[in-house]
Amino acid sequence: MTETLQINGDRLWQRLNEMATMGATPKGGICRLALSEADKAGRDLFVHWCKQAGCTVTVDQIGNIFARRPGRRNELPPVLIGSHLDSQPTGGRFDGTYGVLAGLEVVETLNDHQIETDTPIEVVSWTNEEGARFKPALIGSGVFTGVFDLQAALQITDQNDLVLGAELERIGYAGTYPATTRPIRASLEAHIEQGPILEKNRSQIGICTGVQGMKWYVLTLTGEEVHAGPTPMEDRRDPVLGVIRILDKLYRLISSTDPTSRITIGQIETIPNVVNTVPGQVRISIDIRHPKQQTLKILSHTMKEIVAAECSTIGLNWQIEEIWDSPSVSFDPECINAVRQAASKLNYPSMEIVSGAGHDSVYLSRVAPTSMIFIPCEKGISHNEAENICKADATSGCNVMLHALLELAKTDPTIESNAAI
Amino acid sequence: MTETLQINGDRLWQRLNEMATMGATPKGGICRLALSEADKAGRDLFVHWCKQAGCTVTVDQIGNIFARRPGRRNELPPVLIGSHLDSQPTGGRFDGTYGVLAGLEVVETLNDHQIETDTPIEVVSWTNEEGARFKPALIGSGVFTGVFDLQAALQITDQNDLVLGAELERIGYAGTYPATTRPIRASLEAHIEQGPILEKNRSQIGICTGVQGMKWYVLTLTGEEVHAGPTPMEDRRDPVLGVIRILDKLYRLISSTDPTSRITIGQIETIPNVVNTVPGQVRISIDIRHPKQQTLKILSHTMKEIVAAECSTIGLNWQIEEIWDSPSVSFDPECINAVRQAASKLNYPSMEIVSGAGHDSVYLSRVAPTSMIFIPCEKGISHNEAENICKADATSGCNVMLHALLELAKTDPTIESNAAI
Repeated sequence: MTETLQINGDRLWQRLNEMATMGATPKGGICRLALSEADKAGRDLFVHWCKQAGCTVTVDQIGNIFARRPGRRNELPPVLIGSHLDSQPTGGRFDGTYGVLAGLEVVETLNDHQIETDTPIEVVSWTNEEGARFKPALIGSGVFTGVFDLQAALQITDQNDLVLGAELERIGYAGTYPATTRPIRASLEAHIEQGPILEKNRSQIGICTGVQGMKWYVLTLTGEEVHAGPTPMEDRRDPVLGVIRILDKLYRLISSTDPTSRITIGQIETIPNVVNTVPGQVRISIDIRHPKQQTLKILSHTMKEIVAAECSTIGLNWQIEEIWDSPSVSFDPECINAVRQAASKLNYPSMEIVSGAGHDSVYLSRVAPTSMIFIPCEKGISHNEAENICKADATSGCNVMLHALLELAKTDPTIESNAAI
Repeated sequence: MTETLQINGDRLWQRLNEMATMGATPKGGICRLALSEADKAGRDLFVHWCKQAGCTVTVDQIGNIFARRPGRRNELPPVLIGSHLDSQPTGGRFDGTYGVLAGLEVVETLNDHQIETDTPIEVVSWTNEEGARFKPALIGSGVFTGVFDLQAALQITDQNDLVLGAELERIGYAGTYPATTRPIRASLEAHIEQGPILEKNRSQIGICTGVQGMKWYVLTLTGEEVHAGPTPMEDRRDPVLGVIRILDKLYRLISSTDPTSRITIGQIETIPNVVNTVPGQVRISIDIRHPKQQTLKILSHTMKEIVAAECSTIGLNWQIEEIWDSPSVSFDPECINAVRQAASKLNYPSMEIVSGAGHDSVYLSRVAPTSMIFIPCEKGISHNEAENICKADATSGCNVMLHALLELAKTDPTIESNAAI
């Protein structure tokens, strides 16, 4: 019996650690906000590695980086493998970085074994996936797939009024390659799960079949700004009381729906934000998610009913603005199957999983056959400086990507790849 | 029957309106943060009027302004009448300004009628009563009465790291007069009620017998920062859920105690403050008040029990810091009586009231016989740009101050003042 082709786990792990020094935080995480100095450093290192690996590096107009390894037939559409290098302000070392460097490691492994694929391969790093610095999230893949307009995206500003286009110029990643979609054979993205499900189920590989639908809202409750002392409780129109009552009901609604429902209140702002003044206004962000589009619609509708009822009782005015709507996604059956077959061939414990988080693959799936490979992360913690994965899982996920890619990069699926010896 | 001496309501009203242009906001309120340009302009105007009225103006080391009108016997301690000119960031036109200008109007009236009092009178404007720019509140009266150390107070910084002492220098109000207490015959402060009680009871004058005790806390709840999508609700340690459950119980506790209890959550901060991240930490301010010190202690104790119980259920860590403690205050019986007698003599509908808000008089009461005169404000709204009072009430409150002062500025209470003819 011959050995199945394997990636170099040591090299991948060493590069993950080296990349983690770009924007490293004292608590062991990273702050690599899109188009920051740290992001530039991370991009430069990635580009350096890609060139070392013999790839041709192209940067498009929105700063997406494509590192191309030619195939046997370069007129064919490429298989894209990658993710993103930017992070949350107090983010973890792996998040999207794992997917980008796993892509690169697949190329290195093919080089090491002098394996030629039929289609070309492109390792990609998408711009501003997180949406932490520039809103919305997924700008790079969104422009590439035609979801967002390039010119509008280049005008987006961060909270210091710095302009995305100018920041791309500043860090040297305002490319000239058209940021527009082109024929793609398939797109594969490896990513840490960012949740505890694989760990709980002792699975090493998540065969990701789709992405939860999500809706983001800004809820503004307006009452009356009064001094904290003299106004009796029953005479107040206190928006904080509105927040308590509404969120109490919303959390109960989500918990009672089913275990795949989620609600997250990431931002709460009190105005004028003074200890001894009942706020005149409170603004909160609401992020709700569900894998079924119909359920998400019902949750959203019920939320508005709860808001209206509670505000009417307390005498508050309210406004609810939907700032983000990402319908649930089902990935491509062929790509899902390539991942399933690879995991099975490698004998890794695996399970099907629906992503709770949005990913660049959500947009990629609109223009190309797409799927994702998840690996476990410690205690499910992500978007957190404590985010962690183990080397064995990093290696396994990358091996699955290698074998899924080898399958998808063939012109004729009936011809056995020369990779599995 | 001869007429009772009256202040000039037109002059008082006109001056209130003129002072309201100093730091005026587009919505009809004022932003006259302590030691800002607007505060300097307000102080300059007040000093100008005091000098016009023949007063000797003195500024002490913490920027408190004293405008002295001599009496028949200048070796006697003065009666202080006044309040403060600074405001909240989105404050009202009357708040402390009414008390300062009512004090000045009393002096003007005495001048108009060539009335000499036995003791001298000093109209006072205290520095940084609000605590909106420099924390804590009541710095001017606190230093004057020995509650705060002068040198420490001069080093306090605002949120832009500007230093109180340097800001006093900059606006020309770093005085040389010692900011320390001295013999005071009595202290009277007129103020808008800042609550709805007088209006509800159709009373024109609040005979303020004391001030509610208050405690300020910062509660910090620490859970786990995770991505909004992948982590199931039951696996989260979400500090927002902690806030909802704790505040729900605290609001119920306060409502069930008695109608004089108050709770205000003026500030809520989520960290890292990102839409799609479950906050790792939430910080809230808690302001609780009650007129009885013993009840306040019980409420504070119960609050901590609630916090501990709810955090234990959700798996949150918590920390509660008391940042302000102002025990309840009972004013001086003689001063209260002078106000009661004046209201009665003038036939104004009046009632006893306990202040829900802190005032400079809280500290003054530690070193001098003190009381306060409240007038109604529209719908009880204060610390709000919509704050409003009516001219008739402004006049009545000032008349009460005039007659209470005439009583207290006598050396021998058995001698009839020459004011009431």
